[in-house]
Amino acid sequence: MLVVVCLNPAIDVTFTVDELLPGSTHRVQASRQRAGGKGVNVAHVLHQLGAPVVLTGLVGGRRGTAVSTELAAGLTARLVEVADETRRTVTVVDRTGRASVFNEPGPVVSAAEWTRFTGTFAALVGEAEVVVLSGSLPPGVPSDAYAQLTRIAHAAQLPSLVDAAGDALRDALPAGPELVKPNEHEAAPHEGVDGLLRAGARNAVVSRGADGLTAAVGGRRYEVSLDAPVAGNPTGAGDALAAGLAYGLRGRDPDWPDVLREATALAAASVAVPYAGAFDPDVLAAVRPLVQVKEI
Amino acid sequence: MLVVVCLNPAIDVTFTVDELLPGSTHRVQASRQRAGGKGVNVAHVLHQLGAPVVLTGLVGGRRGTAVSTELAAGLTARLVEVADETRRTVTVVDRTGRASVFNEPGPVVSAAEWTRFTGTFAALVGEAEVVVLSGSLPPGVPSDAYAQLTRIAHAAQLPSLVDAAGDALRDALPAGPELVKPNEHEAAPHEGVDGLLRAGARNAVVSRGADGLTAAVGGRRYEVSLDAPVAGNPTGAGDALAAGLAYGLRGRDPDWPDVLREATALAAASVAVPYAGAFDPDVLAAVRPLVQVKEI
Repeated sequence: MLVVVCLNPAIDVTFTVDELLPGSTHRVQASRQRAGGKGVNVAHVLHQLGAPVVLTGLVGGRRGTAVSTELAAGLTARLVEVADETRRTVTVVDRTGRASVFNEPGPVVSAAEWTRFTGTFAALVGEAEVVVLSGSLPPGVPSDAYAQLTRIAHAAQLPSLVDAAGDALRDALPAGPELVKPNEHEAAPHEGVDGLLRAGARNAVVSRGADGLTAAVGGRRYEVSLDAPVAGNPTGAGDALAAGLAYGLRGRDPDWPDVLREATALAAASVAVPYAGAFDPDVLAAVRPLVQVKEI
Repeated sequence: MLVVVCLNPAIDVTFTVDELLPGSTHRVQASRQRAGGKGVNVAHVLHQLGAPVVLTGLVGGRRGTAVSTELAAGLTARLVEVADETRRTVTVVDRTGRASVFNEPGPVVSAAEWTRFTGTFAALVGEAEVVVLSGSLPPGVPSDAYAQLTRIAHAAQLPSLVDAAGDALRDALPAGPELVKPNEHEAAPHEGVDGLLRAGARNAVVSRGADGLTAAVGGRRYEVSLDAPVAGNPTGAGDALAAGLAYGLRGRDPDWPDVLREATALAAASVAVPYAGAFDPDVLAAVRPLVQVKEI
């Protein structure tokens, strides 16, 4: 079983407009909303892969109830309630497909609520093979939250995968997570895979969108690329990559080139689906043989 | 008592960002939300004036419950529930104060729900002096909704004030509302106050923001202006103007120059408050003597 942590889930709202003109009033042509957040996407992809997965995290208020209700329909979720309201994200998409995103910071979490969450997490890892720590931290959660959770996982002899940015990534590294997976922008302050290893990560993958990824894993370096880019919606491709890597971490001694190939194909197959948290199995089968994994 | 109809209330969400850059991801620095919609603003201003007011309209879903709960704290509301979800509006304000607005169309209202609403409205007008019909119509509500409600008001010998745009305004006019109050853009297809009277309105006021208004009321024509413009937030000034006009309509034989002066001063006093649905009483007292009402 995989435990996926999403500390800052969201109601993701998407507005379709003709053209975004700053300073003007827009008629929203279509409006959709769904439960989101990077960890939610990772859990959905793992579920679609057929892996047993439990999603945990923090939810609050009316929007938290909406997130819980929606997730309960498709996933096993063990969410911890907080007093403040779960955040919203609003994405405005114009007729050319250009997306403008507005992210609320999230609920203010108290020290007592955070302590309660770590207790829930500790109880869950007793049954797990891998834990995935993914996405932003809401206000009030300590910046070393992913280090704390990694240490709880280590106490249960479990590997953790951290997919985060900024302070949340930086302060996770000293705990020695099994694998970190920032994108190239998130990894820049650490000077790439080698810097991430020096700061404490046991293995590191840095993704570059459609240009593939660089991996420092199992004591070796790899460049991974896919020569047949997939057209579609790249939102969530990083989450599919994380799901693929976490899936591969279930074995104690991963065949890294194989894990990297499968995860890269999964990310590409997620681009073929117009929303995050899902992949197209036919595209996955088609692109898998086209992924190039080169040791460098 | 005044009955204010808000058929398409909203959860008004305001996001503060540093700069709106189309196509990019924005961190929301501050997020607020409150119940909104033009009729809600009109009812709040009438309530602040000390007038007995009942707000009615359509609400649905979780957001409808949030609207009802918030309004019940400050107003007397008789809202009718519909199955679909109350809409959202999102306003993104940047550091220069520039506002970009995204308006959802609203819930899809069934014919049965509309019929149920007209019954509630008919019961309410039995106790009323004036009805105010304000704002957009949600999908499914017939475009002649304000004509239907005006006829119900007329059957109870009550005047109606219609503040609407587009088809909702056009299809209200044949019922002969006592007063219509579009702004100059909304009135343009009707060629101003005279066209509005020809199409059926008994009296008409066309507002021009800080430049005042033109009125064709009581068989006369007036130009109204305020030489001391008020700095602040003009959102909701039109709703304060409508509230002031409705307040003046309570008497059977309005002193029109006085009604126009008071309503114009009220609109200006609403600009001094940073949100819609309220006015600054000190500003109202200060600007009242500065309003110029000229018969033309």
